[in-house]
Amino acid sequence: MTGRFVTFEGLDGAGKTTQVRAVAEALGARGIEVAITREPGGTRLGERLRAILLGDERIIPDAELLLLFAARADHLRTRIRPALGRGMWVLCDRFTDASYAYQGGGRGIPAERISVLESWVQRELRPDLTIFLDLPVEVSLARISGGLFRETRDRFEREHLEFFERVRAAYLERCRRRPDRYRVIDAGLDAPEVTRSILEALQTEREPEPPAGRPRPARA
Amino acid sequence: MTGRFVTFEGLDGAGKTTQVRAVAEALGARGIEVAITREPGGTRLGERLRAILLGDERIIPDAELLLLFAARADHLRTRIRPALGRGMWVLCDRFTDASYAYQGGGRGIPAERISVLESWVQRELRPDLTIFLDLPVEVSLARISGGLFRETRDRFEREHLEFFERVRAAYLERCRRRPDRYRVIDAGLDAPEVTRSILEALQTEREPEPPAGRPRPARA
Repeated sequence: MTGRFVTFEGLDGAGKTTQVRAVAEALGARGIEVAITREPGGTRLGERLRAILLGDERIIPDAELLLLFAARADHLRTRIRPALGRGMWVLCDRFTDASYAYQGGGRGIPAERISVLESWVQRELRPDLTIFLDLPVEVSLARISGGLFRETRDRFEREHLEFFERVRAAYLERCRRRPDRYRVIDAGLDAPEVTRSILEALQTEREPEPPAGRPRPARA
Repeated sequence: MTGRFVTFEGLDGAGKTTQVRAVAEALGARGIEVAITREPGGTRLGERLRAILLGDERIIPDAELLLLFAARADHLRTRIRPALGRGMWVLCDRFTDASYAYQGGGRGIPAERISVLESWVQRELRPDLTIFLDLPVEVSLARISGGLFRETRDRFEREHLEFFERVRAAYLERCRRRPDRYRVIDAGLDAPEVTRSILEALQTEREPEPPAGRPRPARA
């Protein structure tokens, strides 16, 4: 597997979708092959499950988590791993950190359960870099309710303030514990400035040590 | 929880649906409150997932198993546990044994993985009795393809003979290991005879010992 796997996390309204596109464009301009995808979704099955997950139905937390990992297993097998295998950079709008933040921090499912499913469906694969677009919860909710980004609100977006505070805290805690793999970026900045910060993070990201005897490859 | 939880297992064409109905009718005639349900399915979410699982889409085994347990978590919480809690007998057309047989035996997912999900979503709950309607695979396939039971075939039914041999073997192995909880019934007999055998199994089923000091309740 030679590509790079970069995930984008953040509360709704943090600008993930915009930033994924802007970063893909900038990388493309440098000749890097980029695949953009999202979770839940990214595959035919995943998008069908996304419609269920973000729909009006009230889903109990355990079922929600299992559905997300079912979609993730399919996403990894049919889309993410093949793209990485072809050397592409995969930019994914939400991934397993979102399960830890929303289902773990937000809905109170023990992290150990999430970890079991993570090891199961991902095996050794983890994102090379995770960009957390951080925003105070009030700003996130104001952006969403102000209709700045969307006209309609989905089930997750209707959840209450305290829920999102727990989600944000869970994200920040994960970033704090693994500063090598996470970058917290202030999503309150202007969009072009956020894009610049992300591109900088992608360039300064630590690469794994090359195998002994093999020269370190030049960065694209 | 005072009701009884009875599951019906078997290959397609074994007559589970017919038998669940016949047994429910016979129990109802004795004044027992009965709830009939099925897996995957039994709830609004479960039926939506059933349509995906039995549809044309090719789903990888891990995703399939996770979807089945997502549906099961919802089914237990919103339907099975409440009915048992009200003292009803719940007759379920397929349950977790089907996951061990189809996804475990059939598709080769390690039983340990299934066991983790089982403990997670069911906690201590296991069927009081599981009726395995046994049929040679050739008979099952002939019944299905002969259109005796159904006009259309779903994805599971299109799978090959060897697959079903593994499924049947997994079912029989589970029955062999826990003769107290399982009854193997020859599904090649006439339907009324099968119904009589099931009703007999329900009457001779061992009940758990009552707590010390409490008299054993009379059987319905």
